[in-house]
Amino acid sequence: MKIKGDFRCHLFALVLIFVGFQVSVHGRLLSVSKPDPDDAAATARWLVSQNNWGVLNTISSDLGGAPFGNVVSFSDGLPDEGHGIPYFYLTTLDPTARNALSDQRSSLTISEYPIGTCGKKDPENPSCAKITLTGKLKLVDEKSKEADFARNALFSKHPEMKGWPKGHNFQFFTLDIEDIFLIDWFGGPKPLTVDQYLHPKTYKLAFTL
Amino acid sequence: MKIKGDFRCHLFALVLIFVGFQVSVHGRLLSVSKPDPDDAAATARWLVSQNNWGVLNTISSDLGGAPFGNVVSFSDGLPDEGHGIPYFYLTTLDPTARNALSDQRSSLTISEYPIGTCGKKDPENPSCAKITLTGKLKLVDEKSKEADFARNALFSKHPEMKGWPKGHNFQFFTLDIEDIFLIDWFGGPKPLTVDQYLHPKTYKLAFTL
Repeated sequence: MKIKGDFRCHLFALVLIFVGFQVSVHGRLLSVSKPDPDDAAATARWLVSQNNWGVLNTISSDLGGAPFGNVVSFSDGLPDEGHGIPYFYLTTLDPTARNALSDQRSSLTISEYPIGTCGKKDPENPSCAKITLTGKLKLVDEKSKEADFARNALFSKHPEMKGWPKGHNFQFFTLDIEDIFLIDWFGGPKPLTVDQYLHPKTYKLAFTL
Repeated sequence: MKIKGDFRCHLFALVLIFVGFQVSVHGRLLSVSKPDPDDAAATARWLVSQNNWGVLNTISSDLGGAPFGNVVSFSDGLPDEGHGIPYFYLTTLDPTARNALSDQRSSLTISEYPIGTCGKKDPENPSCAKITLTGKLKLVDEKSKEADFARNALFSKHPEMKGWPKGHNFQFFTLDIEDIFLIDWFGGPKPLTVDQYLHPKTYKLAFTL
């Protein structure tokens, strides 16, 4: 009986190791590999999915209409299941949410640099990718299905958000993307429509591996 | 003699350790140690001096006046000799410089997160510091002393800039700071005037140690 027990135990451990290995290998493939820079849509989606913070820019009502950037956390879905549309958890105690409620014009700027895949390149080197999604920053109806999606997307990537003070009245916001500015190589911005970004052929394939 | 030799050897080792400790402590104080969050001016200057990239926001002339953030490299002086005023090396092939030449309103947003001193905090956690310098983005006269300062400041922190294509006509720009938005702890933005930022009492002391 003891031998059978030990055998079961070892078999169980081997299965666990095997499963763990598969998960980690799949996780790495999906989450770290940078797409080919020629594939603008895949690169853009990878950048947005792999980063979890950026600078959210609004028109400042306090500062004479100046463009006002603010460091924010964001998420476009569960880890390694990004959908490309960024969500934010903001409070009107902060100027960014207040600005957006009076003028929705906004952009979100993300750099590849903090992901750690730019090596020794300068952060402004064109092959260290950067993206700016420009559009309208909109409040998400807190009783909608979209709010459920936003909550799962944000709280899975930013666990401490669950404990942020209730009294600060944090609310979900999203960026309705209208224009994409992507630099991921030499030669200027890559042409990329919002539709191409939201429905990337190769990146979708990567998720089904 | 052997005892004396051993003693000398130990004394020498002790001196080496002591000197090494001083150097490393001073090095850490000047370049890595984050100031006390209560000291807004020192924290702000530390953030700007220690980081070498941020998001530079302008009013987009291409996108209906939307706030447009762009990842840029910057420098406020030689490494560990920051003066607080950021300089940039921009080309009008990129929208940011074009925007600034038609509307100077601008802001530079910098996060503590990529410096690596936020630990496991979320990038939006108020104790992971962030700063937005708002003002006017201005071209620096290339024949001025300020251009010499900008060149040394930028090329020392961003060596690859020296080799950027001459044909792209990169020029030095600076931000004439008018307002400072600093979050480095709980309780909202820290009051900080431009004068306090440019003449920080404690941070200046740190540099003379």
